[in-house]
Amino acid sequence: MKNQVLLDKALALLPKLHETEVRVARTVIMNKEDDSIRILPDEDYNKKLLKKGDKIILDFGNHQVGYISMKLNSVGFHADAPVWLKFHFAEQPVELFENGKDFEGWISSSWIEEEEIHVDVIPSKVKLSRRYAFRYLEIEVLAISNNYSLVVEDITCTAVSSADDRDLIPYDTTDENKKQLDKIAIRTLHNCMQTVFEDGPKRDRRLWIGDLRIQALANYETYKKNDLVKACMYLFAALPKSDEQIGACVFLEPKPAVDDNVTDGQGTFFDYALFIVSILYDYYRETDDREALEDIWACAKKQIEIAARRVGEDGLIKGEDVFGWCFIDWNISLDKQASAQGVLMYVLNQAIYLASEIGDSEIEEEYRELYDKLYTAANRYLWDEEECCYVSGKDRQISIASQAWLVLGGAIEGIYAKKLLESIEFKENVQGMVSPYMYHHYVDALIQSDAKDLALEKMTEYWGDMLNQGADTFFELYNPMNPNESPYGGTIVNSYCHAWSCGPTYFLRKYFN
Amino acid sequence: MKNQVLLDKALALLPKLHETEVRVARTVIMNKEDDSIRILPDEDYNKKLLKKGDKIILDFGNHQVGYISMKLNSVGFHADAPVWLKFHFAEQPVELFENGKDFEGWISSSWIEEEEIHVDVIPSKVKLSRRYAFRYLEIEVLAISNNYSLVVEDITCTAVSSADDRDLIPYDTTDENKKQLDKIAIRTLHNCMQTVFEDGPKRDRRLWIGDLRIQALANYETYKKNDLVKACMYLFAALPKSDEQIGACVFLEPKPAVDDNVTDGQGTFFDYALFIVSILYDYYRETDDREALEDIWACAKKQIEIAARRVGEDGLIKGEDVFGWCFIDWNISLDKQASAQGVLMYVLNQAIYLASEIGDSEIEEEYRELYDKLYTAANRYLWDEEECCYVSGKDRQISIASQAWLVLGGAIEGIYAKKLLESIEFKENVQGMVSPYMYHHYVDALIQSDAKDLALEKMTEYWGDMLNQGADTFFELYNPMNPNESPYGGTIVNSYCHAWSCGPTYFLRKYFN
Repeated sequence: MKNQVLLDKALALLPKLHETEVRVARTVIMNKEDDSIRILPDEDYNKKLLKKGDKIILDFGNHQVGYISMKLNSVGFHADAPVWLKFHFAEQPVELFENGKDFEGWISSSWIEEEEIHVDVIPSKVKLSRRYAFRYLEIEVLAISNNYSLVVEDITCTAVSSADDRDLIPYDTTDENKKQLDKIAIRTLHNCMQTVFEDGPKRDRRLWIGDLRIQALANYETYKKNDLVKACMYLFAALPKSDEQIGACVFLEPKPAVDDNVTDGQGTFFDYALFIVSILYDYYRETDDREALEDIWACAKKQIEIAARRVGEDGLIKGEDVFGWCFIDWNISLDKQASAQGVLMYVLNQAIYLASEIGDSEIEEEYRELYDKLYTAANRYLWDEEECCYVSGKDRQISIASQAWLVLGGAIEGIYAKKLLESIEFKENVQGMVSPYMYHHYVDALIQSDAKDLALEKMTEYWGDMLNQGADTFFELYNPMNPNESPYGGTIVNSYCHAWSCGPTYFLRKYFN
Repeated sequence: MKNQVLLDKALALLPKLHETEVRVARTVIMNKEDDSIRILPDEDYNKKLLKKGDKIILDFGNHQVGYISMKLNSVGFHADAPVWLKFHFAEQPVELFENGKDFEGWISSSWIEEEEIHVDVIPSKVKLSRRYAFRYLEIEVLAISNNYSLVVEDITCTAVSSADDRDLIPYDTTDENKKQLDKIAIRTLHNCMQTVFEDGPKRDRRLWIGDLRIQALANYETYKKNDLVKACMYLFAALPKSDEQIGACVFLEPKPAVDDNVTDGQGTFFDYALFIVSILYDYYRETDDREALEDIWACAKKQIEIAARRVGEDGLIKGEDVFGWCFIDWNISLDKQASAQGVLMYVLNQAIYLASEIGDSEIEEEYRELYDKLYTAANRYLWDEEECCYVSGKDRQISIASQAWLVLGGAIEGIYAKKLLESIEFKENVQGMVSPYMYHHYVDALIQSDAKDLALEKMTEYWGDMLNQGADTFFELYNPMNPNESPYGGTIVNSYCHAWSCGPTYFLRKYFN
């Protein structure tokens, strides 16, 4: 189903990476007691004579994405055996207290940024061939001859990004809280901006449409690297699944291809496929790029057509029994029906605008009718008069996600929407949010409902708490009740620099300036 | 103390390596019960779908020294995480039942041929950058995504050697025993012939003079790659220690340098330094290369001058208290005095010939006098009338090494030498031999004493027993009483292809044709 024309345009737009040489900021010692890690300064790494079992921990001062090189030298007799080294890269200190070989979680431990190498000739220069995402690097001497000690010198990180900080639009605020949130969000965005917008530079290192949508919005307020958005949008449109639905993510290597395996072979999510419309809408509003609108429009329409097949006679989205048919949030207990209804309404509003721009009045009218049907059904069947909120699924589940997405979809507006969102968190038995991704849409819904104070408060509470936990970049997952929680079976595979968490810079710059 | 003229000549003579593509002979399963390992055929590796924890063992059919490349492919969904692989190369099956991380011996476990790699992109081609010595390769999948299985294809070893089998002189014999011993000795020599004559391609991978002397002799009967001998001889002569004594071994990388650390900083052995004379003698007899004789002669004389400083008024070598002042054998209980006396006498006989060739009659006369003094002292002070053999040191230790070297040095000759060697092994409290290196000189002494039948018997017994143990190449160390013995604390660091063990091809072709 590859569209070679769109693919060629996408590939031609892929950026070159900027390289920055980053030196070690300090050598440190880490001590862990219970859940608390103390970081203490240590003697500079290049003054240490290392023997078997010795370790050094290097702090690069901030989160980096790049390539490591160093010189290995010896003190003592001539090096008469190879040196065997282990490298452990960590975005957060806690990772250094876990071991890849002990990891038993369901995600592949091949993501853990550990590496072992043998170096035959000392002195020599060593450059690790793989890219790592990290702030800390622990180097352990697994084996060395008794006849010499190892000295590691000139450790350098060649950091890479397609974002160039010289292009960064300044953010003028005297509010230290906002300044910090903006800074960390931008670092998150910056380090995820590689050849494509990656979801996380540690894991999965590839282009997901859910992350792309948020990255694109953050990009318009910061680096304005709009060709990168265009390239990524074209990649999705060029590489649909066999049924023409947009995939949830695409691979660039070994050759551009859609992922065939999201949710056990389904290949996408209901909401993710629709977001190509939303990305096109945001991009077109930002750039007025008519060529892109015309190139992507057919694909965008197709996604609505496919989504509309799930709309029943009653105007409600039919939630499938297939696990993960719609993403919404990393919460397997969440019923997705009402949220999906909101997503389709949200996207239809954008599609109506695009149809009007492109002059397709027939389809514009069709979308308006569909929207009305969805609107009516949402307020007739999903609104619970007793609970005073929307419910989802046959068990009439109440969740923050359902309210947020139906607000974003325009099912409820103005003061009613504001009241709904202000009250929902105080209800009992409400399914909460587990990912910054869902928090993003909750904050967005608050802003759309003119609950800006609460939006800022929630943003400060949630993302600010990551800051308090020592975040250099915002995380893929964060539970304020249990900061070291991992759905993967160990923090060692968590991604602590994750694109869908970069929204604060978008919100702050667009709505709180 | 570097002699740049000799060094430049040496470097100019270093050979290019021949490459041979070797394919996997078979995929195998290994089962170990007690000390016995059973090797069974397995399904071909490239038909296996590998998941986490799966292993394949590849048999390359013979001992190889080279570089490994392969293709990694996937079956299932698109590869969505790196694959983390462990490679364990083994010269002998027993090594695969040990683990580098568990090794606690005194030698560096960095020699163990284990490697871990992460491969980010599947399918892809992988080439390991380091050289390995092995017949067997175990590949283990340490981690992989649940969404695909790994298929390993086209595993190839690019085997390297400076020996070219097209140059190999045929060995005509119908004796299957001799043919087998010759074949394994030649494979040993072949795989140690790299840019220099290495001691062992697994460990230490460098040029030791004790091994070189035996390799050169084997080379004259087989590949006649005499420029390689010349290059190696020049390297030693060009890179003496600061006192002008020849070092025990030299490094080529990162730049040519003598090892400063044999026996705790002494940098050489008494016998090893003298062997530059012996190597020059053998080389000159083989090639008539007058240039080499003139280039190396000064260095050769210097070694005798330095060694002669240890000769007391009584004509006996003074054995030092420094551990390992003289090598002779890998036997720390062995008293080296008598053997050292024999080595100096052996070398003097060769030096007298060279002095005569070069026309230095003064030094020739000096050497003759020194020889006579050593001869007289050996038979006056080291011969024990009661024991009817030579003794060594203040404890008058009896050893096979002392007899063998004093025979080789000409202290005893003809029928007396033969009787001495024939009887010595039946005495009580005799220090035996532990290395093929000392066995080599014992066999040489038997041949020089016209005990050729016994020489062949001993050679067949010792090297032949390695054959019976499944040797593809001859080992660094072999104790017939305990085939898996290792002085290093584990067979995993043993070198099973070791140059000083290649003598059988020299003896067989020269004396048993």
